Amino acid sequence: MTSRARLAAFLDQPKVRTAILWVILFNAVILGIETSSEAMEVAGPLILTLDRICLAIFTLEIAAKLYAHGGRFFRDGWNIFDFVIVGISLIPATQGLSVLRALRILRVLRVMSTAPRLRRVVEGFVTALPGMGSVFLLMGIIFYIGAVMATKLFGAAFPEWFGSLGKSAYSLFQVMTLESWSMGIVRPVMEVYPHAWAFFVPFILLTTFAVVNLLVGLIVNSMQDAHSEEDNLRTDTYRDEVLSRLEAIEKRLP
Amino acid sequence: MTSRARLAAFLDQPKVRTAILWVILFNAVILGIETSSEAMEVAGPLILTLDRICLAIFTLEIAAKLYAHGGRFFRDGWNIFDFVIVGISLIPATQGLSVLRALRILRVLRVMSTAPRLRRVVEGFVTALPGMGSVFLLMGIIFYIGAVMATKLFGAAFPEWFGSLGKSAYSLFQVMTLESWSMGIVRPVMEVYPHAWAFFVPFILLTTFAVVNLLVGLIVNSMQDAHSEEDNLRTDTYRDEVLSRLEAIEKRLP
Amino acid sequence: MTSRARLAAFLDQPKVRTAILWVILFNAVILGIETSSEAMEVAGPLILTLDRICLAIFTLEIAAKLYAHGGRFFRDGWNIFDFVIVGISLIPATQGLSVLRALRILRVLRVMSTAPRLRRVVEGFVTALPGMGSVFLLMGIIFYIGAVMATKLFGAAFPEWFGSLGKSAYSLFQVMTLESWSMGIVRPVMEVYPHAWAFFVPFILLTTFAVVNLLVGLIVNSMQDAHSEEDNLRTDTYRDEVLSRLEAIEKRLP
Amino acid sequence: MTSRARLAAFLDQPKVRTAILWVILFNAVILGIETSSEAMEVAGPLILTLDRICLAIFTLEIAAKLYAHGGRFFRDGWNIFDFVIVGISLIPATQGLSVLRALRILRVLRVMSTAPRLRRVVEGFVTALPGMGSVFLLMGIIFYIGAVMATKLFGAAFPEWFGSLGKSAYSLFQVMTLESWSMGIVRPVMEVYPHAWAFFVPFILLTTFAVVNLLVGLIVNSMQDAHSEEDNLRTDTYRDEVLSRLEAIEKRLP
Repeated sequence: MTSRARLAAFLDQPKVRTAILWVILFNAVILGIETSSEAMEVAGPLILTLDRICLAIFTLEIAAKLYAHGGRFFRDGWNIFDFVIVGISLIPATQGLSVLRALRILRVLRVMSTAPRLRRVVEGFVTALPGMGSVFLLMGIIFYIGAVMATKLFGAAFPEWFGSLGKSAYSLFQVMTLESWSMGIVRPVMEVYPHAWAFFVPFILLTTFAVVNLLVGLIVNSMQDAHSEEDNLRTDTYRDEVLSRLEAIEKRLP
Repeated sequence: MTSRARLAAFLDQPKVRTAILWVILFNAVILGIETSSEAMEVAGPLILTLDRICLAIFTLEIAAKLYAHGGRFFRDGWNIFDFVIVGISLIPATQGLSVLRALRILRVLRVMSTAPRLRRVVEGFVTALPGMGSVFLLMGIIFYIGAVMATKLFGAAFPEWFGSLGKSAYSLFQVMTLESWSMGIVRPVMEVYPHAWAFFVPFILLTTFAVVNLLVGLIVNSMQDAHSEEDNLRTDTYRDEVLSRLEAIEKRLP
Repeated sequence: MTSRARLAAFLDQPKVRTAILWVILFNAVILGIETSSEAMEVAGPLILTLDRICLAIFTLEIAAKLYAHGGRFFRDGWNIFDFVIVGISLIPATQGLSVLRALRILRVLRVMSTAPRLRRVVEGFVTALPGMGSVFLLMGIIFYIGAVMATKLFGAAFPEWFGSLGKSAYSLFQVMTLESWSMGIVRPVMEVYPHAWAFFVPFILLTTFAVVNLLVGLIVNSMQDAHSEEDNLRTDTYRDEVLSRLEAIEKRLP
Repeated sequence: MTSRARLAAFLDQPKVRTAILWVILFNAVILGIETSSEAMEVAGPLILTLDRICLAIFTLEIAAKLYAHGGRFFRDGWNIFDFVIVGISLIPATQGLSVLRALRILRVLRVMSTAPRLRRVVEGFVTALPGMGSVFLLMGIIFYIGAVMATKLFGAAFPEWFGSLGKSAYSLFQVMTLESWSMGIVRPVMEVYPHAWAFFVPFILLTTFAVVNLLVGLIVNSMQDAHSEEDNLRTDTYRDEVLSRLEAIEKRLP
C-alpha cells in the first residue's frame, strides 16, 4: 500500500469526515460572529486567528486529497466544488475587495459536500435540472424577446426600468415574480402608454404557465422515479415466475 | 423528381435547418444590439443592414417553402406561425409605428419552430390547453361577472381602477395575482365602502381555487400520459400471454 | 301523459336548454353594456327593457319548472341555485340599494347550471370540498387564535389593522396571501413591538404549510379518482378471468 | 379495578371528551369577546369569571389525567401539548406581561388534541415533517450564508434591513416570500451597489427551487402512502393466490 493510498484511506475514514464537518460548523459560527461589530471590538484578533486556522485546515485537507488522488481528484464534481470554494478564500482580500471577504462564508457550503444526507439532497436537485433544460431555454428566449421589446417600447420614457437590455430583464424578472408588477410598474407605464397591459399581461400569463410546467415536470419525474424502482422490480419478479410456471405446466402436459 | 419536390427535400435537410437556426440566433443578437443607443451611434447602418439581410434570408426561405409545398404549406401550424412572424417584419415601419418595429424581435420566436427540442416543448404546452378549456371558460365568466359588479359598485368612487369594464378586469387580474391587492386596492376602497372585503376576499378565494384546479388538472393529465404509454403496453403484453397460455393448457387437458 | 310531464319533457329538450343559454349570454352582454354611461345615455330605456325581457324569460322558465316538477324541483341543487339567483333579481331595487342592482349580474352564473360542461367542472370543484373540510377547520382555528392574539397584542397601537377581531382577521388574511406583509404591516409593527416577527413569521409558515397540504390533498385525490375508474376495472376483469381459468384447469385435472 | 383505572376510564368516555370539547369552544368564544372593549365595559367581571371557570375545568381535567395515568401521562405527545398549554395560562399575568395574557388564547389549540378528526390532520402534518428534514437543513444553511453575506455586503449602507444577522435573516425571509423584494429592497440597494441583483436574484431562484422541491417531495410521499395501503394489499393477495394455484396444478400433473 503506497503512502498515497494510505492517505486516501485515512481521509475517507468516517472519523476524519466528521472532524472536518465540525471544523466547517465551527468556522460557520466564527464567520457569523465576525458580522457583529461589538464582538469584533472585543475579540477581533482572536476571531480572525480562529478563522485562519479553519482555513488552514481546509487547505491542508484539499492539498492532502489532491496528493492522495492525483489526477482523479478532479473527476468528482464535489472535489472541484471544494477546491473552488477554498480557492476563493485564499485570494488575498487586502485590496479593499469587500466582496471577496464576503464570499469567504461560502466555505460553509462545504457542509453540503461533507454531510452525506445533504449531499444526496443536492445531487437530487442537480439531477432534476437537465430534464428542465428545454423549458429553461424557452424561458430564456421569452425573457430575451421580452427584454428587447420592453427596451424598444418603454425604454425612452422609463430609462430607470427599461433603459437597457439588462434593466429590462431585471424588471421583467420582477414582473414574473408578480412583485409590485401592477402598482409599481405597469400602472405608471400605462399612464404614458395606455396599451402597455397588452404586453405585460400576456408576458405574465406565458411565464407563469412555463413555471407551472416546470413544476408539473418535476412532480411527474419524481413520481416515476419513486414508483419504478421497488414496485416494478416486485412486479417483474412475479410476472417472470408466473410465466415460467405456466411453461413448466405446458411441458409436463401429456 | 420535380423541382418542387427537390426544393422541399433540400429545405428539409438538417444542414439547411441548422443554418436557418444560426441565422435566427445571429438576428437575435443583432436585434439585441439595436437596443443600445451607443452601438447604434457607432455602427448603426451596419447593424440595420445585417438585420435586413437576415430578414431577406427568412423571406426567401418562406417563399421557397411556399413554392415547394404549395397549398399544403398552410396545413402545418408551424408554417403559419413562421409566415405570420416574417410577415409582420415585412410591414413597412416608416409611418412612425414604433410598435411594429418592436414586434420585429418576434422573429426570434422562429427558434421554437426550427429547433426540434423546443418545438416538442411548445407542442406539449399547446396540447395541454384544450383540457383546461372548461376551467378557462369558468374563469372568464367569474372575471366578467366580477368586472361588471366592481364597475357598478366601485366605479363611481374609484374611476381610475373600476371606471369601465376593461379597467375593472385589469384591476381584478391584479387582485387575482395578489399584487398589492390589500394595501393598494382593497384598503383604500374599504375607506369608502367598508364592506368591500365581502366582494374581494371571496373573489380571491374563488379565482385562486380555480387556478389551483388548473394546476391539479395539468399534473394529473401529465401523470397519466407519462404512465399509460410504456408501462401499460408491457402490462397488456404480459396479460395477453398469460391468458393465451392458460387457454392452451385447458385445451390440452384430457 | 299529464300536462306536467309534457311541460317537464319540453323544458328538458336540448333545443329549449340551448335557447335559455343564448338568453343568458345575451343578458350578460346587456348587463355589461349597462356599465357604460355613454351607452346608457344613448339607449338607456332600450337596454333596461331588454334586461327586463330576459328576466321575464328566466322567471317564466323557473315558474314552469316549479309547476312541472312540483316538490321534486328543490331536490336538485342546481334548481335551488337558479331559483335563488333569479329571486335576487326580482327584489325591487328602487330603495337605492345599489348592491342589489349589482347582484343582478349574478344571473350570468346560470350559464354554469345550463351548460353541461361547465356544470361538470363546478360539480368537480364542489365534490373536492368535503375532503378538505378538516384542513379548512384547522385554518379557521389558526385564524381565530391569530386574530385574538393580534388584537390583544397590537390592537392598541395599530387600531386600523388590528383594532377588532374582524380587522385582525382581514389583516391576517392579507399576511397569509403574502401581500405587503413585511413592508406594509410587520416592519411598521416592529417599530413599536420589536419582537412582532415572532408572531408573524410562524403564522406565515403555519398557514402556508396548511395551504400546501390542501393542494397536496387535492392532487392526491384527483390522481386516485382518475386512476381507479378505468384502469382498476380492467385489472379486476383480467384477474377474475385468470382465477376462474385456473380453477377450471384444476377441476379438469385427473 | 383501582380508583386510578376507573378515573382513566371515566376521562376516556366519549361523553366526557365531548363535554371538554364544548368547554374549549365556549372558552374560545369568551376569549374572543374579551377583545372587544365595549363588551368588557358592559360585562367585564362576568367574562373574566367565565374564563376562570373554563381554566379551572381544564386544570382539573389535566390533574385528573395526571393522577389517573401517572408517569405514562407524559409518554403521549398530545398530553404534553395539553399540559404546556394549560400551564402557560396558569402563570400569573399580573406583572404587566401582556404577551402572557395573549398566549391564553392558545388554549383553543386544545381543540386539536380533543377532536379526533383534527388530531389526525395534525398528526399527518407532523409525520410529513421528518421527510423534509434535509431540505429544511439545506434552507437553513442557505439562509445562514445569505444572512452573513448580506450583512457584510449591505449592512453598512442599510443598517435597518441588513444591520445584523437577525435583521438580514428577516429581510431575506421577506425576499424569499417575494414580498416587495424588488421595489422595496433590491432597487434601493442597487442605487448604492449596482450589482446587488447578482446576490438577490440567485438567492430567490435557489430558495424558490428548494421550496418547490419540498412541495414535490410532499406530493410524492402522500401519493405513495395513499397508493401502497389498500391497493398493494389486494395485489399481493391476488398474486399469492395465483402462485399457490399454479403450484397445486403442477403437483397434480402426472
